[in-house]
Amino acid sequence: MNNQIKVGIVGYGNLGRGVVSAIQQNTDMKLVGIFTRRSPESISMNQADLNMQHISEVEKYKNEIDVMILCGGSATDLPEQGPKFAKMFNTVDSYDTHAKIPEYFDSVNKAARESGKTSIISVGWDPGLFSINRLMSEAILPKGETYTFWGNGVSQGHSDAIRRIEGVKGAVQYTVPINEAVDRVRSGENPELSTAEKHLRVCYVVSEEGYDQEEIEKEIKTMPNYFAEYKTEVNFITEEELAEKHSSLPHGGFVIRGGESGGENKQIIEFSLKLESNPEFTSSVLVAYARAAHRLNKEGQAGAKSVLEVPPVYLSPKTAAELRRDLL
Amino acid sequence: MNNQIKVGIVGYGNLGRGVVSAIQQNTDMKLVGIFTRRSPESISMNQADLNMQHISEVEKYKNEIDVMILCGGSATDLPEQGPKFAKMFNTVDSYDTHAKIPEYFDSVNKAARESGKTSIISVGWDPGLFSINRLMSEAILPKGETYTFWGNGVSQGHSDAIRRIEGVKGAVQYTVPINEAVDRVRSGENPELSTAEKHLRVCYVVSEEGYDQEEIEKEIKTMPNYFAEYKTEVNFITEEELAEKHSSLPHGGFVIRGGESGGENKQIIEFSLKLESNPEFTSSVLVAYARAAHRLNKEGQAGAKSVLEVPPVYLSPKTAAELRRDLL
Repeated sequence: MNNQIKVGIVGYGNLGRGVVSAIQQNTDMKLVGIFTRRSPESISMNQADLNMQHISEVEKYKNEIDVMILCGGSATDLPEQGPKFAKMFNTVDSYDTHAKIPEYFDSVNKAARESGKTSIISVGWDPGLFSINRLMSEAILPKGETYTFWGNGVSQGHSDAIRRIEGVKGAVQYTVPINEAVDRVRSGENPELSTAEKHLRVCYVVSEEGYDQEEIEKEIKTMPNYFAEYKTEVNFITEEELAEKHSSLPHGGFVIRGGESGGENKQIIEFSLKLESNPEFTSSVLVAYARAAHRLNKEGQAGAKSVLEVPPVYLSPKTAAELRRDLL
Repeated sequence: MNNQIKVGIVGYGNLGRGVVSAIQQNTDMKLVGIFTRRSPESISMNQADLNMQHISEVEKYKNEIDVMILCGGSATDLPEQGPKFAKMFNTVDSYDTHAKIPEYFDSVNKAARESGKTSIISVGWDPGLFSINRLMSEAILPKGETYTFWGNGVSQGHSDAIRRIEGVKGAVQYTVPINEAVDRVRSGENPELSTAEKHLRVCYVVSEEGYDQEEIEKEIKTMPNYFAEYKTEVNFITEEELAEKHSSLPHGGFVIRGGESGGENKQIIEFSLKLESNPEFTSSVLVAYARAAHRLNKEGQAGAKSVLEVPPVYLSPKTAAELRRDLL
């Protein structure tokens, strides 16, 4: 296809691999190269046609790539890579350190404005699609409460916290919304609920031989910030069962606004996701917003944007006229 | 408050009344006047401070109103009023004759471009919020199917159709999504389903004395287009019960996209509404988009737009920086 959008990827972990497969689902896009800090030859390739390059080569691609998808982490990669790549490319990223978003936005915005590029930050589902739904439902129903539930899904942070306990060989932690709390919110009751009252923590743990499972369970359940405040369930299983049943990365959640319109009628707006693969879904969102970044830039809208500032129409390969005809 | 957005309303039916109460929930907005074809004095007023004017007075308000909310119907009012008011004011409307949207868009767009005003058309929930969700979920998951379910809710068209039958004194028809179909869609099965396979029609009917209820029931159930294709349930009730239990206008529905990301993982996106008052909710959406029309116009974005083309950030009274900080 002519006029395909030429896409580059920085970082080849779960997210980067998801972006590769998402681009293959979009015929208006073409993957030009993947840039990694590792030695490109060291990466075992299941798709021989990928152009794997060391990140130091990236400047050579300045005119070959319409939009660069940054697949690094928020802790250390993106704070450096976001502004750096915005100097050379249109970019999208999934920066998700909530408290530092304004600061990150400013640094990417400065770089993108100087280069005349367009960067969309904090793309994904939360932050991302959930944020859009919070904004829209609050604007439509100014009187009301917004609730976010996460799960069922694997929390990497909580799984890691369990794995750091002595005597733990392997562990996966699922965040599970508490049905009773969800039902109360869906009914429009607008209850006061802490995060702990909304979520259950369910752990599957493999213990090392010679360690006391009761001790491990106690250590998990009393861990401050991670588990102590929550209702926590600990299940010990075998290494085989962990590998067999708990190696995928499902996730999801709901954003529910319980509001009241002017005549005191209850109005409930809900947005929900049920995802078999959390990283693949985030990758799919990144790719749709990569299309938007490219288009916004072609229209001269340089600088940083969040998903909140992007008109929906830019996400689709169809024209505005086609979308009005087919989807309105 | 200074700098309040000055709003006008054309038409004072269910929707217009909903807009009045929605504006009262938004402190950044102020209602300037309501324009009606009826004699303004003939309208019984429960809010004495409303400035009710005959529609012929509207030109005098050209410089007094930032955005005009058109609350007329799609059949005859809006095709005439949409382009007419776009020549004088920024406008929003809830035009919903799906097949004629492109034509309507063009006529409003022409008028708005000439006047330098901004008009947002087809605002509400379907078309409107549902359309945005169809677009976004299809762009994110290009491989998949999108399903729309409506209900539980009152269908005015179907209720009217029953009322036209001889021997029927009153009737209300609820469109009800069939749970089994919803569950299949939510599971990611992506079944083929006709509208009739997705919805049940539940009717509450008051018959005139001396008419055969069985005859009426048969006439309802065999009515082509409206009921013949559907599983239809007819309940005869008293006039009192109809007035008491079936005089509100609840509605709602779901848009569900069952998709598959690149690695063949199922991903389900769902947007749903549960509304105690359909017209009040539509009014609330209109008011949020009125804010957007005013702002887009201040930024020089003249012409017609649909909701698909409006960045979410314009719906909120907060600034983009506040929204990034608080909602991302």
